[in-house]
Amino acid sequence: MLFRERTDVGKAKEMFLAEIKGMEKTELLPATSSIGRVLSTSILAPRNVPHYRRSAMDGFAVRSVDLMGASPTNPVMLQVTDEVIEGTCAPVNTGDCVPDDADAVLMMEDTISIGDMIEIRAQVHPGKNVGEIGEDVRKNEIIFNKSHLLRPCDIAVLASLGINNVKVYAKPIVAIIPTGKDLLPLPGDDVPPPGKTLDINSLMIGEYVKKWGGIARYCDIVPEDKQLIEDIIKANLDTDMIVVSGGTSVGDKDYVPAVVEKLGKKLVHGVGLSPGKPTALGVADNVPILCMPGYPAAGLVALFAFGKSALRKAGNIPDIPETTIRATLSGKIMSREGYVSYARVILDGDIARPLMTAGAGILSSIAKSDGFVIIPENVEGYEEGSKVDVVLIE
Amino acid sequence: MLFRERTDVGKAKEMFLAEIKGMEKTELLPATSSIGRVLSTSILAPRNVPHYRRSAMDGFAVRSVDLMGASPTNPVMLQVTDEVIEGTCAPVNTGDCVPDDADAVLMMEDTISIGDMIEIRAQVHPGKNVGEIGEDVRKNEIIFNKSHLLRPCDIAVLASLGINNVKVYAKPIVAIIPTGKDLLPLPGDDVPPPGKTLDINSLMIGEYVKKWGGIARYCDIVPEDKQLIEDIIKANLDTDMIVVSGGTSVGDKDYVPAVVEKLGKKLVHGVGLSPGKPTALGVADNVPILCMPGYPAAGLVALFAFGKSALRKAGNIPDIPETTIRATLSGKIMSREGYVSYARVILDGDIARPLMTAGAGILSSIAKSDGFVIIPENVEGYEEGSKVDVVLIE
Repeated sequence: MLFRERTDVGKAKEMFLAEIKGMEKTELLPATSSIGRVLSTSILAPRNVPHYRRSAMDGFAVRSVDLMGASPTNPVMLQVTDEVIEGTCAPVNTGDCVPDDADAVLMMEDTISIGDMIEIRAQVHPGKNVGEIGEDVRKNEIIFNKSHLLRPCDIAVLASLGINNVKVYAKPIVAIIPTGKDLLPLPGDDVPPPGKTLDINSLMIGEYVKKWGGIARYCDIVPEDKQLIEDIIKANLDTDMIVVSGGTSVGDKDYVPAVVEKLGKKLVHGVGLSPGKPTALGVADNVPILCMPGYPAAGLVALFAFGKSALRKAGNIPDIPETTIRATLSGKIMSREGYVSYARVILDGDIARPLMTAGAGILSSIAKSDGFVIIPENVEGYEEGSKVDVVLIE
Repeated sequence: MLFRERTDVGKAKEMFLAEIKGMEKTELLPATSSIGRVLSTSILAPRNVPHYRRSAMDGFAVRSVDLMGASPTNPVMLQVTDEVIEGTCAPVNTGDCVPDDADAVLMMEDTISIGDMIEIRAQVHPGKNVGEIGEDVRKNEIIFNKSHLLRPCDIAVLASLGINNVKVYAKPIVAIIPTGKDLLPLPGDDVPPPGKTLDINSLMIGEYVKKWGGIARYCDIVPEDKQLIEDIIKANLDTDMIVVSGGTSVGDKDYVPAVVEKLGKKLVHGVGLSPGKPTALGVADNVPILCMPGYPAAGLVALFAFGKSALRKAGNIPDIPETTIRATLSGKIMSREGYVSYARVILDGDIARPLMTAGAGILSSIAKSDGFVIIPENVEGYEEGSKVDVVLIE
């Protein structure tokens, strides 16, 4: 398979992402259903927190003026009552409202109880241990910015402010188009006849789309027919992204990139990615189109290298760094010069064992690998004993 | 608040995890519903992959014996037909079945087409470009080990083997018990009266439990009453873990650790964690009990420091390393000696800005922080400009 071009992975990704506009469609959701979603507007605090003067300690609310000059040699006695006026104090617990005329709270430990009086041996600053109104959250301050990804702790904060609904971006819809005359749809209860392959890629792509924050639209298997491929891509230009699996090499029947070129713009065909070289990237009607190799392992790598970021950009979902583990290689891994190589490894604690049978078509290499060691273009590979970062396959 | 003891975070976690047995309960699920679940048995491949001799290239299936001695000066001509017998070859595409009598596949590029013949100028090893039966996956080999966490790519592998159902561990059930006479249940459409607080912790804990792979069982708010706390804990000893929020300090009404001691074993009360010092850990009837402080920020830290690993161990779910970002501090952060401190920071690219108002009770510190800088016991803090690892708050 010979490609006229071979674009750098970094360059190809940059070109692809540059064509993707974040979605504008929004929806209003109950806050408790919005975890993992992205705010489409900033959220202002509808009230002060605390909305009353709140004691930060268990102790006694006092007027600081009453304690002026208090010291071990000159203690002040205050009457314990329910209200605070000159010469009295009131017991408060943490979180309680501080009575109107009090302006400080003494910690229990700093007082000596004598009957219904307390003795105090130090003066206190006004405001001590008193949470002022709005100290934590001020009414109308921005509590979450637009584009914030909502986490469980955020939902709790929203609930505490009485915010029960939030406006978030709609999830990006991703059309998944499997191509190939020899593909059979799942489920495959029977062993497929020789030469036929079950379409596992659609399932794999769809489940990653969902995991990464999108909605999967599954399409029927399309044979290698230029017109049919064109028709199905056209019919899905109402989505936010299209992933075509297969038909992207340089064989006679690899029509997909040409169809993309006809319908819009082919950005890249052939990338310095191993496995995953036949990947093509394009755009039509503002819909990004990822054409990934049909071989499962190569397709998976293309999906991780391009699909994940593209989907997240389409959905305005902040990119989160990959989870990596620092490990020591138990064997040498080789790389093709000029290619970013995704070497599959098995992790055993902090030992990474390279998988031997790592061909693009090898199914078991996916099942058995825990992660990728990503080898840059300009590195030939890593020797046994090298320290490497293993990106976990999520 | 004075604690008699202050256990190291590492030691406390070790003691707590040592009491947790992984669950034994399993369930049978459709494979497509099992992403994120953990296999309770190993899975054997029910068939060979490939289950036929599969061509690894587009080209011609040949008998290698026919090409013995072929060279540029001594080319061999083969007739292109549909079957392979002495002197003939058959065209095959990648993935096709290799005809019975053929034992190698020549790449298209290594042949010269002349009418219905091809000319070959090199000999070929038997087996070249032929994927033998079981080369990828051998029938009855272990394809996934017991305790494997299923990923989208694994589901695709299962589908390709015709495995449509899998046996996984049941999700651990976590009872969530909020305590405190001043708590009000959600939703809080109205501003709570002074001195009252909305119970946002239950929601926060519950959503993290779900995110981490468990099932949340929400309990009603329990006032500070020793008997009522005992009753509710007893009533939930049928779960896999209990999280009690609040009532774990050393005040008169902080009964929770004493109740845990009565019902089973109090392992730890008071840990070197900031915020989160009042955390207590225990076990009763083999059910681990995490008693976390009622202050949201302190509770969140206790949940991350102890709850996550405990839940995952209870559910046999492999621990995944936290997602971290290497960043430069834009300001100093201080730590308490003898405490593991979770300093909250805002990330702006690779700059981490410490949050100033980071008290345990400060609600906005959760909303505004992107992650924690975790400062070990023996470190006093970090200077402005230090490189630190920021653990993202998920």
